[in-house]
Amino acid sequence: MSNIAYIPGDGIGEEVTRQGIKVLEYLDGVYNLGLKFEKFDLGAERYLRTGDILPDDVLNKLESFDSIYLGAVGDPRVEPGVLEKGILLKLRFYFDQYVNLRPIKLYKEEFSPLKGKGLEDIDFTVVRENTEGIYAGIGGFLKKDTPDEVATQEMISTRKGVDRVIKYAFEYAQKFGREPKLTVCDKSNVLTYAHNLWQRSFKEMGKKYPDVEQNHFLVDAMTMKMVRNPEVFDIVVTCNIFGDIITDLGAELQGGMGMAVSGNINPESISMFEPVHGSAPDIAGQNIANPLAAVLAAGMMLRELGYGNLTPKVEAVVKQALENKMVTADQGGDLSTDEVGDYLVKTLKSNE
Amino acid sequence: MSNIAYIPGDGIGEEVTRQGIKVLEYLDGVYNLGLKFEKFDLGAERYLRTGDILPDDVLNKLESFDSIYLGAVGDPRVEPGVLEKGILLKLRFYFDQYVNLRPIKLYKEEFSPLKGKGLEDIDFTVVRENTEGIYAGIGGFLKKDTPDEVATQEMISTRKGVDRVIKYAFEYAQKFGREPKLTVCDKSNVLTYAHNLWQRSFKEMGKKYPDVEQNHFLVDAMTMKMVRNPEVFDIVVTCNIFGDIITDLGAELQGGMGMAVSGNINPESISMFEPVHGSAPDIAGQNIANPLAAVLAAGMMLRELGYGNLTPKVEAVVKQALENKMVTADQGGDLSTDEVGDYLVKTLKSNE
Ligand SMILES: CC(C)[C@H](C(=O)O)[C@@H](O)C(=O)O
Ligand SMILES: CC(C)[C@H](C(=O)O)[C@@H](O)C(=O)O
Repeated sequence: MSNIAYIPGDGIGEEVTRQGIKVLEYLDGVYNLGLKFEKFDLGAERYLRTGDILPDDVLNKLESFDSIYLGAVGDPRVEPGVLEKGILLKLRFYFDQYVNLRPIKLYKEEFSPLKGKGLEDIDFTVVRENTEGIYAGIGGFLKKDTPDEVATQEMISTRKGVDRVIKYAFEYAQKFGREPKLTVCDKSNVLTYAHNLWQRSFKEMGKKYPDVEQNHFLVDAMTMKMVRNPEVFDIVVTCNIFGDIITDLGAELQGGMGMAVSGNINPESISMFEPVHGSAPDIAGQNIANPLAAVLAAGMMLRELGYGNLTPKVEAVVKQALENKMVTADQGGDLSTDEVGDYLVKTLKSNE
Repeated sequence: MSNIAYIPGDGIGEEVTRQGIKVLEYLDGVYNLGLKFEKFDLGAERYLRTGDILPDDVLNKLESFDSIYLGAVGDPRVEPGVLEKGILLKLRFYFDQYVNLRPIKLYKEEFSPLKGKGLEDIDFTVVRENTEGIYAGIGGFLKKDTPDEVATQEMISTRKGVDRVIKYAFEYAQKFGREPKLTVCDKSNVLTYAHNLWQRSFKEMGKKYPDVEQNHFLVDAMTMKMVRNPEVFDIVVTCNIFGDIITDLGAELQGGMGMAVSGNINPESISMFEPVHGSAPDIAGQNIANPLAAVLAAGMMLRELGYGNLTPKVEAVVKQALENKMVTADQGGDLSTDEVGDYLVKTLKSNE
């Protein structure tokens, strides 16, 4: 039995996650997973209607769920950042989802923007710290709006916070790594406090995982290496802001946001899964949005719910959809959002 | 008359800058620039010998120069960060070199790592803030080396510091931009203090430059766009850490560190020019290191010294060296470091 809180959100959020739900419901029927969905109305519409972003009673209610499946938030009528911070970041922090898991995986050779880099080369996973660092939201202004203004923004790393995400990354490398190898990405030569802690934590934790090869890249060199030799990476662990940056770069290496998935994970509590693409208001409601990332997010959620054997099945049909061009226009097909979902379910069925 | 402080530094620093000096001396002879060089012994050797990194009397002496020409710092025998912070960052901060100018320019089609992106597409300039932000070096530890440890690192933006670099970027766009267009790159949706100031500064300053097209990218989206459509960028202005990251990514789009140049500029005082590649101790002293970035750095210095008409001449011979494969092995040629320098001088001569 798993209770899933379903937050379609804004723009294309609803139409793409509907395909994820289709896939989940199909698997539920076959494997008797006992999935139950409850929909939550959060996002721009509600905010514009009521002024509520994420009220306490909703937060409290969400606590009784096993997982959250999120579409997208963001709307041109709302100031940028308000919904992202009020919903997305709020949920990550409230449920202490300290791991942001972002696979960088090329699904189709021709999507690679890099010369000579294909399916074998672009395939690694970033474990991003998701609850601290410069995302703490702490800072302020002195003499605001004067020529003497000073603005501060605090990057805070805690030993507990860094240790736990690095530990997760080592264990993830053991379970899912190819080699296995774990790379820590930081800027410890300049951030001599916050990232010195990262260095110490990584080295000490590393002693407990002698079977995992360990190395280090400064974030600037990391972005170069991702373009030149993405194949050297297996699992990468990094802080919140650098994770934000390198996973978007990674998404582009996969061929863009169309395939990028984000798992916001608290291994002991409630996790949240989302496609990384935004709400894309310009194409919302037209049944043309690409649902594959939303479907992959649903697949990743299954693993967290304890049905890890089903995750590869979902990945496999996504791959088939791409190979057979049973996809939306942005990915070279001519199906509607709904038709892609139907194709995925049909293919799951025929793969049995 | 221009007095140039010459700091070859560590590893390949000396051999590559020697070629830059050759080029400068040749131009000096022809155009009577009155360049004078004085060499400063800074870097790992001195540090290991004397314990000095950058003593006050050297700093004081440097104040009487017009410009600094730097090779590279860094040595495996010294803890990472010590020389970089003690020399490179120290000089940037001491001389208040608030602009870090980094051209991202593809010199040879085949160096591009991106499918379908060539000389026309990869050609923009990043203006990186160089004296504040999270490079301030401010922060600390609480309960260090205990499970309750907290480490902080402060990002500080001042109105003066942000205004001046944005102003520089607008003027640079007017002078050297193609369109001209200025893109500000930040993470204002999350860094609601430090980068809110960036947003306000950019918008207000922008009113004074209505002839410059203005737009905005969040840093995560920026890295994607740089890979997908680098041609949309003309001039980009950004904070210290994001500048560090996106210029390395940009260097890779140029084909790697072999061509990456960094001008640390204080328009009212002493600027410093350096190739971005490090000291490469593994190949030092073998006369095989690629000197082109060091030569381009010398060319950029000429502009700052008031001989801007000579800068394109230097760029042109570098381009010719690449076209004619009169380069080192890493760039597809078979010349030594010295021979490349000689070729550049010879070509300057025959271009007259
Ligand atoms: C929307 C934004 C706040 C968010 C982040 O910065 O974490 C997004 O970019 C992401 O990576 O999930
Ligand atoms: C060496 C290091 C301190 C430096 C920086 O981070 O600025 C370098 O990466 C650069 O970009 O010039």
